Amino acid sequence: MNHPELHAQPCLPRGFRCAAINCGIKTEGKDLALFASEVPGAAAGVFTRNLVPGAPVVVGRELLRVGRLQAIVVNSRVSNVGTGEAGIRNARRMGAAAAAALGIAPELVLMSSTGVIGVPLPIELIEAGIPRVVDALQGDPLVGAEGIMTTDTHPKALSLSVGGAVLTVVAKGSGMIEPNMATMLCYVLTDAVIAQGALDVVLRRVVDDTLNMVSVDSDTSTSDTCVAIANGTSGPVDPAAFEAGLRVALTAMAEKLARDGEGASRLMRVSVRGAADRAQARTIAKSLINSPLVKTMVFGGDPNVGRILMAVGKCFDCRIEPARLRAGISGVTVFDDGARTDFDEARVRALLGEDPVDLTVDLRVGDGEARAWGCDLTPGYIAENAAYYSS
Amino acid sequence: MNHPELHAQPCLPRGFRCAAINCGIKTEGKDLALFASEVPGAAAGVFTRNLVPGAPVVVGRELLRVGRLQAIVVNSRVSNVGTGEAGIRNARRMGAAAAAALGIAPELVLMSSTGVIGVPLPIELIEAGIPRVVDALQGDPLVGAEGIMTTDTHPKALSLSVGGAVLTVVAKGSGMIEPNMATMLCYVLTDAVIAQGALDVVLRRVVDDTLNMVSVDSDTSTSDTCVAIANGTSGPVDPAAFEAGLRVALTAMAEKLARDGEGASRLMRVSVRGAADRAQARTIAKSLINSPLVKTMVFGGDPNVGRILMAVGKCFDCRIEPARLRAGISGVTVFDDGARTDFDEARVRALLGEDPVDLTVDLRVGDGEARAWGCDLTPGYIAENAAYYSS
Repeated sequence: MNHPELHAQPCLPRGFRCAAINCGIKTEGKDLALFASEVPGAAAGVFTRNLVPGAPVVVGRELLRVGRLQAIVVNSRVSNVGTGEAGIRNARRMGAAAAAALGIAPELVLMSSTGVIGVPLPIELIEAGIPRVVDALQGDPLVGAEGIMTTDTHPKALSLSVGGAVLTVVAKGSGMIEPNMATMLCYVLTDAVIAQGALDVVLRRVVDDTLNMVSVDSDTSTSDTCVAIANGTSGPVDPAAFEAGLRVALTAMAEKLARDGEGASRLMRVSVRGAADRAQARTIAKSLINSPLVKTMVFGGDPNVGRILMAVGKCFDCRIEPARLRAGISGVTVFDDGARTDFDEARVRALLGEDPVDLTVDLRVGDGEARAWGCDLTPGYIAENAAYYSS
Repeated sequence: MNHPELHAQPCLPRGFRCAAINCGIKTEGKDLALFASEVPGAAAGVFTRNLVPGAPVVVGRELLRVGRLQAIVVNSRVSNVGTGEAGIRNARRMGAAAAAALGIAPELVLMSSTGVIGVPLPIELIEAGIPRVVDALQGDPLVGAEGIMTTDTHPKALSLSVGGAVLTVVAKGSGMIEPNMATMLCYVLTDAVIAQGALDVVLRRVVDDTLNMVSVDSDTSTSDTCVAIANGTSGPVDPAAFEAGLRVALTAMAEKLARDGEGASRLMRVSVRGAADRAQARTIAKSLINSPLVKTMVFGGDPNVGRILMAVGKCFDCRIEPARLRAGISGVTVFDDGARTDFDEARVRALLGEDPVDLTVDLRVGDGEARAWGCDLTPGYIAENAAYYSS
């Protein structure tokens, strides 16, 4: 099987269109997006594990029990979380309005909201905007991606081919990102024929290794949603090729999201091997990607490499033998057999200044492996989040 | 029982002296400290759970099996962690040098090191400095506290009376602080008579509710140590009064450490009640105190109160019923029955600008309670940690 490659420019799969407009929730910029297929498709979704989920997550879980969707309507700036029963009613009104404008059944429309928590959804603005966003439907996925941005610095979409079909991923997310079971808002659209059950299994498996291993700031959003729709208009594809394509696409999207983490100046990639098992490898990879002291080391280009040991060692429930541990920074081994190597500090300082920065840890106690994606911690993160609500 | 009060000025209990000098590890500032009793005392200690512990932690655990100590020698700037077998030998040499200069047995001297991880301990400088630090022994605990500082902005010591005895706590710690089983470096000195077994039990119980509930940045140090020495020179005290005194003293020290967290502009105190049990209350309190988005909300004085819901909801293994949840900021209820209240935003903005900021969460599902201490996240934290190794 050939390794699938991303297209130079993202496109929408056959039968899909999207649009984004300003409906008045944001003072400027697009705040209402729609993704729609000509025909209903098999659908699967994974949602945040946050125990205070947004209303769209509660309603979305219900809708996906059937496993068929034709459209996704999304607003940004207000997340419809912590809004009680009124929030649930507003989420349903948002889906129903899009269904009416598209002339399809309301249960075929998933809704998402992203933005500030605890503020009522401005449903009248959304209902008034929906006919306009339907009128604006077109073929460039980056237009739809623009409508779902919050603190993202650019719209995020990518495509690749699987057999005769196209697989496109559109996502947003920049902060409050340590997804669990899903991530941010992420939509996977394909014109391949995929049975609903198979789509569900493959989506969960791939998300677990990709989007679920991204962390910008260890804070798990109340709105995380990853939904896939396969409208089947380009016929069947090889299932293994589809999974491989989805893995490439969601790995690339994980990197895109991490690199655009709030305030980030550099992508951080962590690779752990030799752990007792996969679960321990994941725990250690997450500990490294989330450590404020590792993140500031990368930001400062400061070869304070002992912090890697600290972040490994604080995984209390993992099997760690300090005397076997090996750690590296972008190809240079900085710890081996539990002691610091005689590495070239100037070289490591230079490598920490490059983008991306690769941290590797080999525990040499088993064969568990994991990868994780994140970013450095910079004054920009604080500036953005010290006034997010008010700005 | 009267509520014990802190003394206006800290002092050393009867029979204890301390000193600090510069022995050449730091370019300027004190870097070698000694705390010594005239006679050996009952001793107990709790150490970091980090699985890559420093050499002094490894040796200290051994020493405390006997439960008797007479002195503690401490250097700052280099932590003697990630230094392999040579590190263990250097830790023992450091203790032996202090024992020889004091004319006591080496097994009565605990050693601690704090600072950069992974750099060899400059043992020759320390050995050369030890006779000088012994010569400098005197009665002000703040002098000893100064010798163990790293990024602390001021030395930390406090005292209170328990019956006819004095209980004094000296500590350091400002970053890499989410202790687990102990915290930072913290020495509890008393002239009360306390049996070793009782001292051990009480120290563990009180540390668990106080120092173990401090977090500056969610990073658990490899050197965390809290050791108590009771030299008995002022006779016996009521055990309940001693525990109450220790609780007041370590709570006050927890607040001192959190308020001086790296870059902090404000102390954050979290109080959780109504959780399913104590363990869940602790998990939720820690989630709030560690959330970068809650910490930046406090720094910015930005009433983005939905982040409190997010941080509660990401405690996946806790029992949380969003429709019952109540949350408050410094006395103002901002969420009740799962929805945002109609609170006065200007008032909450003002309260977020005060020091300390109190966050309260009532889950209304049980009677578990916990408190935690931390600080806001500011550009100062990043500036300090982006160049700690090099500065």
